[in-house]
Amino acid sequence: MNFTTIRWDRDEGVLVLLDQTRLPGEVVYAHCRDIESVAEAIKGLKVRGAPAIGVAAAYGVVLGVRKSGADEYLSFSREVDEAVDLLAATRPTAVNLFWALERMRRTALEQREAPVEDIKRALLREAEAIQSEDERTCRLIGEHGAAMLRSGQSVLTHCNAGALATSGVGTALAVVYQAHNEGKRVHVYADETRPVLQGARLTAWELAQAGVGVTLICDSMAAQVMKEGRIDCVIVGADRVAANGDVANKIGTYGVAVLADAHDVPLYVAAPFSSIDLSIESGSEIPIEVRNAAEISQGPGGRNAPEEVEVYNPAFDVTPARYVSAIITERGVARRPYAESLAALSHHAWQPAATG
Amino acid sequence: MNFTTIRWDRDEGVLVLLDQTRLPGEVVYAHCRDIESVAEAIKGLKVRGAPAIGVAAAYGVVLGVRKSGADEYLSFSREVDEAVDLLAATRPTAVNLFWALERMRRTALEQREAPVEDIKRALLREAEAIQSEDERTCRLIGEHGAAMLRSGQSVLTHCNAGALATSGVGTALAVVYQAHNEGKRVHVYADETRPVLQGARLTAWELAQAGVGVTLICDSMAAQVMKEGRIDCVIVGADRVAANGDVANKIGTYGVAVLADAHDVPLYVAAPFSSIDLSIESGSEIPIEVRNAAEISQGPGGRNAPEEVEVYNPAFDVTPARYVSAIITERGVARRPYAESLAALSHHAWQPAATG
Repeated sequence: MNFTTIRWDRDEGVLVLLDQTRLPGEVVYAHCRDIESVAEAIKGLKVRGAPAIGVAAAYGVVLGVRKSGADEYLSFSREVDEAVDLLAATRPTAVNLFWALERMRRTALEQREAPVEDIKRALLREAEAIQSEDERTCRLIGEHGAAMLRSGQSVLTHCNAGALATSGVGTALAVVYQAHNEGKRVHVYADETRPVLQGARLTAWELAQAGVGVTLICDSMAAQVMKEGRIDCVIVGADRVAANGDVANKIGTYGVAVLADAHDVPLYVAAPFSSIDLSIESGSEIPIEVRNAAEISQGPGGRNAPEEVEVYNPAFDVTPARYVSAIITERGVARRPYAESLAALSHHAWQPAATG
Repeated sequence: MNFTTIRWDRDEGVLVLLDQTRLPGEVVYAHCRDIESVAEAIKGLKVRGAPAIGVAAAYGVVLGVRKSGADEYLSFSREVDEAVDLLAATRPTAVNLFWALERMRRTALEQREAPVEDIKRALLREAEAIQSEDERTCRLIGEHGAAMLRSGQSVLTHCNAGALATSGVGTALAVVYQAHNEGKRVHVYADETRPVLQGARLTAWELAQAGVGVTLICDSMAAQVMKEGRIDCVIVGADRVAANGDVANKIGTYGVAVLADAHDVPLYVAAPFSSIDLSIESGSEIPIEVRNAAEISQGPGGRNAPEEVEVYNPAFDVTPARYVSAIITERGVARRPYAESLAALSHHAWQPAATG
């Protein structure tokens, strides 16, 4: 990829984020020098995508405590907690955020006997580890998933689960990139993904950058392209997967899943194991973020709708496991019943593949 | 309604159209003084909606031949044919366009013994008749359909099949307005309807004007609001209905129909009998307009997608009759099997209801 979604500048101690609100028009990097700007970047969608949010939040903790004057663990840990709480309040649905923050908190705890400056260094190492694991995870998801694609096939995707959503080559799009690298001809139909247009602005942009064929459609056209026989499978990412395989992902995924089912098109979810929340039984326990009306009623060129109109803007939906043909993780591919297959994968030690 | 979608100014001989490309920001009327401006208004979506297109096209023929210097039917009829051909080439899917143009051509033929100036007057009378019949048709559709709604129910609609799509109170929205007038509490969920946003810009606007409760959602949220149990029925308009009940309507209708079916929500199509094309057996014979990429890739504020991206932009889709619970026309409500029920209604003499 000739862009970098997330980069920690060691010399400057700055988190550099590709500002995704400015794509595809401009490639502009946001420089976050404090935790507040990281939190704002997450809330304001400068960085988005479950894995990328997790990585950004980990560095956010680093920025949140680096100027701490605490001289022992107890007072330092309170500052870590404050940093974690601030970042945890940015977005409720993607579990990677909480998973990454928990890793940061645990790292501090494990280093509680060390001098505070050493704990700070350990926190930076942990954030870097989360990032480099994410890169490797993406590659492994790609390898596991690419085996499921044949040359000549077309994939429908919704939202952006690509390099722009991770520190690596993506989750759903990692599968496409890997198949492409293996010499398979793969074409992607990208739902534009209203209201924030991640499909049009981000997925179409990064696939074009990578030389993968892509056709942009409106969300409302997914049914028609399936009916026309253009789609061999749907691949999407996930913001959180429950123990039973229910999948929270960008609003519209559930509709695509019902449509795929009606057209006998398999739907695959590609996600790092950190998106799988075995602590909850089903999708009904996943909190769904409702975002502001202006995302729908206002466009960059002015109002799309009358001022007085009521708007409903849930940012995610939950796709019941029965619509999910497989869940592709870095540890392998899970199939129904997910309560068993996901539990089995959770007992795997995390093993980088030989090819990784 | 405190706006007028289509008005013929008799004194000036001008067709006055509410310019729907400027809504909801501005209420601006376009004044068409020649056939070319009518054709451009139809192509450019200043006037849209199957019934309104039919009415506008009828007046377009009037404007196309009113300056004719022909002194007998044969040469005059060639000019009528040219006018009809020009207007017929504007948009391919809605059958009302061709139906209205055919009525105009037949009117000229029926008057072939009359002086040319008398034929011109007959053409104007026919256009006015098409318009006033449309008004009455809308009212009757509303009455037939409102009987199917109970107070407290919520309706999902897609695109705009309201007063802005007709000379009257609409087709799908006529049902809502009539129920509202009967004192029933009815709430509408309006799909924003990408790419042209007729739901956000037009449906939300006219329902708000009329004091009907409306919640705007993105197209991709329809599945979720159905899953949440918020929707009692879907009501949409139609651009063309085949003899077997297959329905061509705004792109996305087919997807909504599949989703409604999956959630046991009935889907009703409200359309004038002039939208029913008994000359074709099934929806596969309906030509589907594919519009330009810029509708999707560009917004008023700039590009939504990278420049090089391929776009697929079908403007309509076909919903198979099996997903349609009823077709509400001015002549009554047709149920499956439509080949029989629509044929039966076609033999009805057109009877204005006593209440009309």
